[in-house]
Amino acid sequence: MELKSLFKPERTAVIGVSLNNPLHPANVIYSKNFKEYTTEVHAVNPAADRNAASFNGITARIYRQIGDITGDIDLAVIAVKAGRVPSILKECGEHGVKGAVVISGGFAEIGNRELQQQLVEVANKYDLPFIGPNCLGIYSPPYIDTIFLSNARIVKPERGNIAFISQSGGFMVDQGMGKLAGEEIGVSGCVSLGNKAFVDEANLIEYFESDESTSAMIFHIEGFSPGRGRKFVEQAEKSRKPVVVFKAGRSEIARKAVSSHTASLSGNYVVTSSIFKQYGVIEARDEFDIIALAKVFSHNLKSIARGDIAILTVSGGHGVIAVDFCQEYDLNLVQLSEAEKQILREKLNPAIRPIASLENPIDLTGSSSDTDYETALNFLLEKKEVEAVLLLMLPYQESISFEIGSKLAKVAKRYDKPVIVYVPWNRRYLHLVNDFEKAGIPVGHTVEEAVKMMRGLKRRNKK
Amino acid sequence: MELKSLFKPERTAVIGVSLNNPLHPANVIYSKNFKEYTTEVHAVNPAADRNAASFNGITARIYRQIGDITGDIDLAVIAVKAGRVPSILKECGEHGVKGAVVISGGFAEIGNRELQQQLVEVANKYDLPFIGPNCLGIYSPPYIDTIFLSNARIVKPERGNIAFISQSGGFMVDQGMGKLAGEEIGVSGCVSLGNKAFVDEANLIEYFESDESTSAMIFHIEGFSPGRGRKFVEQAEKSRKPVVVFKAGRSEIARKAVSSHTASLSGNYVVTSSIFKQYGVIEARDEFDIIALAKVFSHNLKSIARGDIAILTVSGGHGVIAVDFCQEYDLNLVQLSEAEKQILREKLNPAIRPIASLENPIDLTGSSSDTDYETALNFLLEKKEVEAVLLLMLPYQESISFEIGSKLAKVAKRYDKPVIVYVPWNRRYLHLVNDFEKAGIPVGHTVEEAVKMMRGLKRRNKK
Repeated sequence: MELKSLFKPERTAVIGVSLNNPLHPANVIYSKNFKEYTTEVHAVNPAADRNAASFNGITARIYRQIGDITGDIDLAVIAVKAGRVPSILKECGEHGVKGAVVISGGFAEIGNRELQQQLVEVANKYDLPFIGPNCLGIYSPPYIDTIFLSNARIVKPERGNIAFISQSGGFMVDQGMGKLAGEEIGVSGCVSLGNKAFVDEANLIEYFESDESTSAMIFHIEGFSPGRGRKFVEQAEKSRKPVVVFKAGRSEIARKAVSSHTASLSGNYVVTSSIFKQYGVIEARDEFDIIALAKVFSHNLKSIARGDIAILTVSGGHGVIAVDFCQEYDLNLVQLSEAEKQILREKLNPAIRPIASLENPIDLTGSSSDTDYETALNFLLEKKEVEAVLLLMLPYQESISFEIGSKLAKVAKRYDKPVIVYVPWNRRYLHLVNDFEKAGIPVGHTVEEAVKMMRGLKRRNKK
Repeated sequence: MELKSLFKPERTAVIGVSLNNPLHPANVIYSKNFKEYTTEVHAVNPAADRNAASFNGITARIYRQIGDITGDIDLAVIAVKAGRVPSILKECGEHGVKGAVVISGGFAEIGNRELQQQLVEVANKYDLPFIGPNCLGIYSPPYIDTIFLSNARIVKPERGNIAFISQSGGFMVDQGMGKLAGEEIGVSGCVSLGNKAFVDEANLIEYFESDESTSAMIFHIEGFSPGRGRKFVEQAEKSRKPVVVFKAGRSEIARKAVSSHTASLSGNYVVTSSIFKQYGVIEARDEFDIIALAKVFSHNLKSIARGDIAILTVSGGHGVIAVDFCQEYDLNLVQLSEAEKQILREKLNPAIRPIASLENPIDLTGSSSDTDYETALNFLLEKKEVEAVLLLMLPYQESISFEIGSKLAKVAKRYDKPVIVYVPWNRRYLHLVNDFEKAGIPVGHTVEEAVKMMRGLKRRNKK
């Protein structure tokens, strides 16, 4: 299934543009793409009785049918009443359109399975893959945006390397767009699948696997269509990129809610979860997990095989909290030998030598200076057994400088090992967050998030 | 044990102020309180050879001993070398000082248990309760701040109704001050307990229980001193206010780290956790839990007895996610009867009547308007069986106004039932967050946080 036309269309037709309702989904979509995206966009309205019109402050030719447009169309975005979609999709097929997004609702989600099946037959006949129906479609900057919500209402991430694919359009807009944008994580594509009558999660793993700009894929899944769950995990297992799933509808009662708002079925969660594990799918348990995994995988860090790490802190309390989460998330603390401790201790400033605790977590105490941090980080990264370092920054100390972030980033760069940092998330410490992020080092909002990111690097390993 | 002098001292002596090191902890503390807090502050340095001096840009009298200060002193903040603390504390006792904060380290945490014991004996003899040693002490706005970190490095919450008591000073500064401030949650007092040789968690429950400005207490605890764990849970059980504990050092390996950085012992976590439950202590599992509970308890909402709630959403996907978390957190969804559904449906706008899903979660769909929200919220709050409503706001719809928050807050005010809201956390939606918060309605950053807050209201019920 060739899906490139969906994500990087050169020429797009928006079908259903209204001449008198500027808030019609087709109008919002036409207008956005006309103004902001690279695709060349054409307006179609089967009921239009003229070939030129003015709508949404734009004067453009409005076509009565897709066949009236000269030249090839890569993508058709369809936002007309449900009953008219099959014939329009057929027209698209006849005119060689290569892909479609069906925004319109009124199909399987309200019981009209037969109408939906007609779309599938057309798509098969004309080799015309489509997203939807009953969806928001695709956000693929800078190429295309089929989301019919106005820019004033939503928040959009920049172009980046995370693919976010969601069964729920609302969750895609909220989490895959707004929350990722808030964390400054960019996307290679966001997809709202809707009823996923034709293109589904398994097809999209294939697409994003071959898409060079994508580093990892994150899926929101309520349920699979019959037989497609297996296909999905098989594709996930084959993928060299991390495949993260946030499974919604885990509880019995939620499964009932799923079937009432979509046409898909949700299986027993415990079984599903164990299958995910078996096929190397990484599960996100909650919304913060999604962010932590999106963040760490957007950094293209090396995987860690065993999960053997060192923790560097200046607050014993934070060290203990990190250790708890490491235990919970299956990471191991590498111990230093007595000889190593002695060597490291002698390299530290005299003021902290008697009080620093060199059991892992290494606690330099609040009296440490920039050079102590640099010395200890260097020492830990140098040690063969340490695969990665978790750095807990507590920038309260008067004894460290405002350059501590860039200094430590420089130390980290000398080694081909991941460093993940916790910095208390506050405007006051943004300079520190920026110094690490600029150097490609991910920063967590909470100690737990930093540990979750580290675990992501371990779980990323495919069997 | 009378602790009011610690939190609301009228006259404070800071002992250890240096004449030549402006960054000495005693100097930072003196200077902060002199400039910003209501307590009258006096500088003491036993080594001072004159009675007036200039330090930190302040010209003030510097006393050689506490006895030289005319009039009563409520609180002594002691920051001198460990070996000199017992005699200074004794002097404080002799001169009727009512409480002390011992900032100095060098006691049980590095093995000097006997020196620490001397402090306890003095405190007992003179009825002079003290916090510490080896601590940051107390932040109690607008009265006093004994934290020796400069204002430029830390973030401080406003006065409010949450008491935050932490065994780890670093965690208090990070979570109890910075993170609470970031969420605009105010505090009635923050305490860093350090070695807690005298005043400990159990004493502080008693104090904050009787402190009228406190609504709830949040504790970070690594371990209890012998016999004091029992006392703590007994006090917690007696308290009419929610007592939240974040237990650090849960894993075996973390317990080892605890004993290496503090002098306290951490017991088996599974046992501790079951005792907490038995005594009505609310456990926070992670950093986000702490925030969610602090937030909800800062709102003084009514408790809910059974946990029977209704969910109102416009995104089916978010509804499913909320249901999963409700199941996980032991909340129940009240079902509407067929007759009730029919009544509600008829009150909705014709456009959404055929598509709204009135199974709980009530999904008004993305085509709903302000009046649909108002109608449905009113209907749910009116229903006797519904104890509280979880409102999932997805402000993407063109069909709702920017006044939706204040409109719904007005509906909520008509009923004596908690409403908790989820709003996607983004600058773009802050108007909505503010409209709810202004009306005393807590807003979660994630669906899970909103559900956690709701659970807090259920768990708040003491047996």
